[in-house]
Amino acid sequence: MSRSKDNHASSAASEGWIQANYALSLATGESPESKAQSLAFEQTVELSPESVSEELVASVVGRVERLERAEGDRWRATLRFRSSLAGGSFSQLMNLLYGNISLLTGVRLLAVEWPDDLLGRFQGPSFGLEGLRDLCGVEDRRPLTCAVSKPLGLSPLQLADLVRQYARAGIDIIKDDHSLADQPDAPFRERVVLCQRAVEEVNRSEGTSAAYFPSLGGGGQELQDNLDFLRDSGCRGAVVIPFYLGLDTVSGLASESDLALLAHPSGSGVLFDEEHGVAPEVYLGQLLRMAGCDAVIYPHSGGRFRMDRATGKAISANLLADLGSLRPAVPAPGGSFDLAALDEWFDVYGPDSLFVVGGAVARANDPQKAAEKLVLTVREAFS
Amino acid sequence: MSRSKDNHASSAASEGWIQANYALSLATGESPESKAQSLAFEQTVELSPESVSEELVASVVGRVERLERAEGDRWRATLRFRSSLAGGSFSQLMNLLYGNISLLTGVRLLAVEWPDDLLGRFQGPSFGLEGLRDLCGVEDRRPLTCAVSKPLGLSPLQLADLVRQYARAGIDIIKDDHSLADQPDAPFRERVVLCQRAVEEVNRSEGTSAAYFPSLGGGGQELQDNLDFLRDSGCRGAVVIPFYLGLDTVSGLASESDLALLAHPSGSGVLFDEEHGVAPEVYLGQLLRMAGCDAVIYPHSGGRFRMDRATGKAISANLLADLGSLRPAVPAPGGSFDLAALDEWFDVYGPDSLFVVGGAVARANDPQKAAEKLVLTVREAFS
Repeated sequence: MSRSKDNHASSAASEGWIQANYALSLATGESPESKAQSLAFEQTVELSPESVSEELVASVVGRVERLERAEGDRWRATLRFRSSLAGGSFSQLMNLLYGNISLLTGVRLLAVEWPDDLLGRFQGPSFGLEGLRDLCGVEDRRPLTCAVSKPLGLSPLQLADLVRQYARAGIDIIKDDHSLADQPDAPFRERVVLCQRAVEEVNRSEGTSAAYFPSLGGGGQELQDNLDFLRDSGCRGAVVIPFYLGLDTVSGLASESDLALLAHPSGSGVLFDEEHGVAPEVYLGQLLRMAGCDAVIYPHSGGRFRMDRATGKAISANLLADLGSLRPAVPAPGGSFDLAALDEWFDVYGPDSLFVVGGAVARANDPQKAAEKLVLTVREAFS
Repeated sequence: MSRSKDNHASSAASEGWIQANYALSLATGESPESKAQSLAFEQTVELSPESVSEELVASVVGRVERLERAEGDRWRATLRFRSSLAGGSFSQLMNLLYGNISLLTGVRLLAVEWPDDLLGRFQGPSFGLEGLRDLCGVEDRRPLTCAVSKPLGLSPLQLADLVRQYARAGIDIIKDDHSLADQPDAPFRERVVLCQRAVEEVNRSEGTSAAYFPSLGGGGQELQDNLDFLRDSGCRGAVVIPFYLGLDTVSGLASESDLALLAHPSGSGVLFDEEHGVAPEVYLGQLLRMAGCDAVIYPHSGGRFRMDRATGKAISANLLADLGSLRPAVPAPGGSFDLAALDEWFDVYGPDSLFVVGGAVARANDPQKAAEKLVLTVREAFS
């Protein structure tokens, strides 16, 4: 069953319309038509249809383009919104696509087609796939390697020692665990200075270009101070948590700092409910890239977090796909890799990826040796 | 059934421990003990128990204090985390309480006891209940009234005319609909100037103190520019969307601007799933207050969004309850009030509240008259 409306037709991509596809799960007594209509009104004028003038309905209310039955009591609704309604900020874009309707039930944003005029308002990744390879001095088309300086509780000297071992092993990017912030065991500034110095010493003696990405957080002036400190310390990138920092803040960091941004998905799992929320391939695969993340960590389908292989592939495909003039971002599967079974995963994630191997390396008796094994396995598989 | 561990006993509030209560829903084959343990490790060291030294287990790993059976397959787990692990930022506090576990299933943060040392790191509301009453020149203990300048699609002149009518009617706070950002129909700066001028003219001629709160968004320098513009225009408060702006950014605004902040819950509904997420009374009732929101809009139990009366009361109670030395924030029920049935809701929400009556007033044939009715009803009920 399909009901399609006429008009403002084919190429959503050139006309300034955002085309958003939602899965609707109906509660008892709900009709698909009224649910789709109420979405269109709630997400724009936030008024019921009978109290909105025809003029406003024509100019700003979302339009239900298609309504199709899916499996069981589920329906698919395709809505179109004028892209100018997003107003240039991510908060408003999210408010338009998934604002008040978050407070209802059974509405999941499945897919979005973004018009060029909207994409043109967002800078996207400053580095992206090629830029990140350049930053680490990687000339081959192979996965980048990432090891994690962890866990919380170690001292700055201990963390710097791990960073040194990973750099010596030939790891491309060594990132702070995203749980490292400014805790007494390893205060932010002391940790950053020692870890950055460790990586620079190895780079000088080995002629390598390993990068240390500390975790960056805070708000207002504190965030600015932290950012200035990273840059003054010579850091070339940072780990951020977009779900808690906010996409506008991440976008500001991407366009105003010269740091590469590696996004961690902490917190974002609440979006990924099967009946209500935003699909991971939209949030992790498109929105984070639009906000300027150069690489996006997502849960690896063989790891300790739920996310099936198809979803991982969809996230990865979106991060790399054509999207206006935005640079591709690097898909970064993580969340428990078994070092002994890495080869199997190279096929899944391919050469345009960043393998985040945290625990398996950090918990080894000899982290440097474990990191060397990771580096060797990648090089052998992609030589 | 209850299993309680010894030690670091009674007064969580004075010892630098965050005490977090989670509801666990078990998947087939999951044991409550291992699920609670894995929470404690995942949210701190992000490693499995066997790879963490005893020293780190003692110093940083979360502790499972209690594990009790609830209804059906649900369990309640009380975990304690050293408050220093939150590191002073909201992103890290959220990452500690609800970070990687968001990517699992069946974990809901139900309640938190906040130690004083942690609360001391956050400024909370700059105005709060009393400050907001002062700002609007309200001397009686009665609910504040809030009308909404809407909808999207109107011109700055039309919106300013609505603001003028509401101010003349005696409304205390007139806020932008949170969907108004910087759209072509009503560009940010033009709208702010005209609406603020309208409210100031009425205040001068009537001797009143009505306030206009525009919606404020953006990231990085753009947010700073928008904020500077609001202050230069004479605005005394703003509407923000904390779920999309990020709590650290809101906290920065609260401590670095002199604006009162009215929080809108757009987007936050994804947190409120019954089995997985963060309870509304924690997020809306505590975290937004800690981040410095002076008033918090939440869905009214008789309105068009799901939220039962008990939850509304719990949010409201938390916003007003003692919480370190933080000022109380104003509970602001919204989301469809029937003007004819307001009296019934005064009992529910009480005098320490802010009634957000958007659509019912905005869609009236004579918005000023509808707003006058709202003002009169409140004054009569609380005289």
